Amino acid sequence: MKNKRILVITGNGKGKTTAAIGIIIRSLGHEKKVGFFKFFKSKLSGEDKILKKLGVRIFQFKKAQFFNPQKIPKNLIKECEALWQKVLKNKDQFDLIVLDEINLALSAQIITKKDFINFAQNTKANLICTGRAAPIWLKKIADTVSEIKDIKHDLGIGNQTQQGIEF
Amino acid sequence: MKNKRILVITGNGKGKTTAAIGIIIRSLGHEKKVGFFKFFKSKLSGEDKILKKLGVRIFQFKKAQFFNPQKIPKNLIKECEALWQKVLKNKDQFDLIVLDEINLALSAQIITKKDFINFAQNTKANLICTGRAAPIWLKKIADTVSEIKDIKHDLGIGNQTQQGIEF
Repeated sequence: MKNKRILVITGNGKGKTTAAIGIIIRSLGHEKKVGFFKFFKSKLSGEDKILKKLGVRIFQFKKAQFFNPQKIPKNLIKECEALWQKVLKNKDQFDLIVLDEINLALSAQIITKKDFINFAQNTKANLICTGRAAPIWLKKIADTVSEIKDIKHDLGIGNQTQQGIEF
Repeated sequence: MKNKRILVITGNGKGKTTAAIGIIIRSLGHEKKVGFFKFFKSKLSGEDKILKKLGVRIFQFKKAQFFNPQKIPKNLIKECEALWQKVLKNKDQFDLIVLDEINLALSAQIITKKDFINFAQNTKANLICTGRAAPIWLKKIADTVSEIKDIKHDLGIGNQTQQGIEF
């Protein structure tokens, strides 16, 4: 019997990863150890550097690229599998494991339902799974599912190339 | 013409404030100065201590309390007004101003539409407004509106009094 949670952050709105980062900060505030696994990404962003400074361990793809989610290129499938092996290898080191954009790898069955559930049963860490199109079975086993809906959306806060607001 | 954004994070789902915290971390990654104004709250949480360490300036109520949002007690109205004055006083110090839970103060007209718009027109900072029930006029002037929907929700990740997951 483990005191563990699975949180799924899905939906077409912006802010799934930033929401996860907020929870990371909250966990760090309670002195938890955090592993941040970034599927389909290979760059350290500004916020990642801060997370690293705060002691978060970040794992990601060696080389990401743009792709059509309907047809994931083979090299990215391999990257998914390699990153998943890192999840399995390091799972016992963390109190919170963030699996950023894993929902796509799950819905494409690059990581199977069976493998994921086996992993989830064998870790003591809380889990956060982000990404559009979370599979239904994941929502079922999750404790919390948040859907971020895009009600209105420009190119996003901080986009310096966009013209500003005029009332 | 200012290169500024207004982002509204609303909805009945959990994660509005954590989503804002994620954006704060992203902004800090770009070396932005951040002011975090917490309406209806008076405690520094674990994550706030980390934000403070990272240089975020936090402002909040002197004394918060539970209340019925339909009937906001007078002392909290005064706290709102006092915190709003701090927003106005400090607005030029920040690149990003997070107005956590302000949506309630706006929909209850403790801070009027006119006052808010006047402020927004006169700051260079990006603004994030969080809280349920954002007023319609705020969504209209916002660049981005994210609604966090509660699809499924237990007592929340990290709630240690809850029993764990059993597959």
